[in-house]
Amino acid sequence: NMKKNIAVILGDGIGPEVTQQSIKVLNAVAEYYGHDFNYKFCLMGADAIDKTGNPLPDETIEVCLESDAILFGAIGDPKYDNDPNAKVRPEQGLLKIRKVLQLYGNIRPTTIYPSLQHLSPLNPKHLEDVDLVIYRELTGGIYFGKKETSADGNSATDTCTYSVEEIERIAHLAFKAAQIRRKKLTLIDKANVLETSRLWRKVVQGLAIQYTDVTVDYMFVDNAAMQMILNPKQFDVILTENMFGDIISDEASVLNGSLGLAPSASVGNITALFEPIHGSYPQAAGKDIANPIGCILSAAMMLDYFGLHKEANKVRAAVSWTLDNKFVTKDIDPINFYFTSTLGELIADYV
Amino acid sequence: NMKKNIAVILGDGIGPEVTQQSIKVLNAVAEYYGHDFNYKFCLMGADAIDKTGNPLPDETIEVCLESDAILFGAIGDPKYDNDPNAKVRPEQGLLKIRKVLQLYGNIRPTTIYPSLQHLSPLNPKHLEDVDLVIYRELTGGIYFGKKETSADGNSATDTCTYSVEEIERIAHLAFKAAQIRRKKLTLIDKANVLETSRLWRKVVQGLAIQYTDVTVDYMFVDNAAMQMILNPKQFDVILTENMFGDIISDEASVLNGSLGLAPSASVGNITALFEPIHGSYPQAAGKDIANPIGCILSAAMMLDYFGLHKEANKVRAAVSWTLDNKFVTKDIDPINFYFTSTLGELIADYV
Ligand SMILES: CC(C)[C@H](C(=O)O)[C@@H](O)C(=O)O
Ligand SMILES: CC(C)[C@H](C(=O)O)[C@@H](O)C(=O)O
Repeated sequence: NMKKNIAVILGDGIGPEVTQQSIKVLNAVAEYYGHDFNYKFCLMGADAIDKTGNPLPDETIEVCLESDAILFGAIGDPKYDNDPNAKVRPEQGLLKIRKVLQLYGNIRPTTIYPSLQHLSPLNPKHLEDVDLVIYRELTGGIYFGKKETSADGNSATDTCTYSVEEIERIAHLAFKAAQIRRKKLTLIDKANVLETSRLWRKVVQGLAIQYTDVTVDYMFVDNAAMQMILNPKQFDVILTENMFGDIISDEASVLNGSLGLAPSASVGNITALFEPIHGSYPQAAGKDIANPIGCILSAAMMLDYFGLHKEANKVRAAVSWTLDNKFVTKDIDPINFYFTSTLGELIADYV
Repeated sequence: NMKKNIAVILGDGIGPEVTQQSIKVLNAVAEYYGHDFNYKFCLMGADAIDKTGNPLPDETIEVCLESDAILFGAIGDPKYDNDPNAKVRPEQGLLKIRKVLQLYGNIRPTTIYPSLQHLSPLNPKHLEDVDLVIYRELTGGIYFGKKETSADGNSATDTCTYSVEEIERIAHLAFKAAQIRRKKLTLIDKANVLETSRLWRKVVQGLAIQYTDVTVDYMFVDNAAMQMILNPKQFDVILTENMFGDIISDEASVLNGSLGLAPSASVGNITALFEPIHGSYPQAAGKDIANPIGCILSAAMMLDYFGLHKEANKVRAAVSWTLDNKFVTKDIDPINFYFTSTLGELIADYV
C-alpha cells in the first residue's frame, strides 16, 4: 500500500484528453493494488498564459515540489509559433520547469510493436530487434544558454555551454542503464565541429573506465540521423546533449509507426516528470481522437519510478493487449478506430 | 566550346578514388562536347595535415580562387575524432575553405531511383513522389561562432550567431529554387526555443512577400526529423541553418537507399565547390569498392553551374542507365558488384 501525491499538468491541445486517460489507468492501478494516488492539478503552457499571463505560475512550481511526481500532457499553441516577437511563449513554461526542478535526464525508450509493423515507415527488416533508449540531457546546452538579439535587430545569438558536472550526471544514468541492458552506449555528438561535443567526448571517455562492462561508441549526429533509419538495431543506450536529443529522439519515436505511442521520463535529484513525446497536436484537440498511449506509458514509467514495477508491467501489458486486439485510435486505424476516452477505459478495465 | 579551370581536392579516405571517376566523366564530357577542362590538384584535410601540417594550406586557397570551380572528394580521419585534445583536425580545412570562399549556400537534392527502391530503409509507399532539395546555410551558425573551453577545463562553449544578411542571401537562393520547382518552401528551425531561429523566421516571413507565388511553411527541426521519414513527399525546397541542415540532409540522403549517391553543391558569390555528401569512409579506402556516383553527380551539378545543362543531363542519364542495368558498387549489391573504377569508366563511356 503506497500513498503518492501526483501533480498533474494537463497543458495544451490534446494534453488534457490524454492526461485524463492516464489518470483513469492510475486509478485502476491504485484500486486493484491497494495504493492511494492523490492528484493536484496545476497550470503550464498556453493554458497558463491564457489564465494567468504566465507560462509557469509560481503555484505550479510549489505544487510540483510538494508532489512525489508530475504527470504532464503536452505544450504549445500555433498562435505563438509564427510570432517572432511574442514576449511570452508556452514552451518557456516547460523549459523553466525542467530547469527549476533540475530534471536533467530525459529518458525516451523506443519500442517496436509487432502488431503495428505495417504502420512503420520502415521496411520490416529494418525494424527487427530494435530496442533502444535515449538519454537526453535536458537542462543545459543551447536551450538554456544566453540568448540575445542585437539592439538594431540585425543579428541574434544563442549560446551552448556544458560543464563537466552536467555531462557526468546524465552520463552516469546512461551508463547504469546500459549495464542492465545490452551493455552498449553510443554517445551522439558533433566533436569534429563543436567544442562542447569535444568536452562530452572527453568526459564520457573518462567515465568509461568506471563501467568496463559497457562498450562505448562515438557517433556524429549527422551520421546518427542516418543510422537511426538504416540500422536502428545497432543502438542500445544513446547518450546525447539537449538539442541533438530533441531531434534524434523524435526521429526514433516514429520508427514504430506512431509518435502517439512514445513515452518519456524526465528525472533529476528532486522529483521526476512524465510526459508523452508528442506535442499538443492542436488540430485534434477536443475531438476525442488523440492517442492516449504515449501518456499512459509515461504513467507506467512513473509507476516504475515509484518502485511499482509489477504495476508498471501490468499497464504495459494492457497497452500491448489493446494494440494486439486492434483497439486503436484514429492515428493508427483511420477507419476502425476507438475514441481516446474509450481506449483509456479499456486499458483501465484490463488493469 | 568552353574552357574551365577546375581545382581538384582529392581529400581523405575514399575521396581520391571517387574524385578520379568524376574526372574521367568530366573528360568524356569535354571530349564529346568539345570543351576544355583543366585540373589543378591541391590538398585539404588529413591528407594536407600529413603532408604540410596544415588542414588547408594557403596554396590550396590560391588555386581555388584562380579556378572556375572546385571538385572535392571527402574529409576526415578517425585518428582525430576520438582525440578531444587534437590541435589540428581535418574538418578545420573544410570549414575554413567554406568560410574563406564564402560558400554560403549548400544545395543537396534528394532523388529516388525506382531501380533501387528495394534498398531503401523506407516502405515503397513512403517514397512515392519524393523530390526535394535542401538549401543549407553553410558559413554561419554554431559552426563558426566563438568556441572556448574554460581555463580549468571545466566547461566548454559554442556560440551560434546569425545576421539578417546571412539569412537573406541563402533564403533568396531557396525562394528562387522553389519558384522553378513546386513552389513550396519549408523553413526548418527551432523557433520555440532559439533566438536565432526566431530571426530566421522573421527574415523569411519578410522575404515571402517578394515571392508571392511560393507557399511558405515553418517546421520545428524535431518534427522535421520525423516528417522526413513519415511523409518526405510533402517537401519541395527546404531552407535551414547550418547545423540543422547537416543533420536533416544526411537523414534525407539515405531515403533512396544509399548515401553513396548523394551529391552537393556549395555556392557563393566568388566560386562554387562540388562534393558528395558521404564522408571519407576509411574502412573502404583503397579497395576500389566505394560508390563514385555521389561524386559524379556532384560533377554534374558543376556542369549545371557552368551553364552546361545538356552535358549535366547527359551525365545524369548515364548514372540512371548504370543503376537500371545493375552496374552498381558493393554498397548497392554486395554480391554482384562492379569496382569504383569500372563504374567510372562505364559512365564515361556512356557519355
Ligand atoms: C516543446 C519543446 C520546447 C520541447 C523541446 O524541444 O525540448 C519538445 O520538443 C520536447 O522534446 O520535449
Ligand atoms: C565533415 C563535417 C565538418 C561536415 C559538416 O558538418 O558540415 C560534413 O558533415 C558535411 O555535412 O559536409
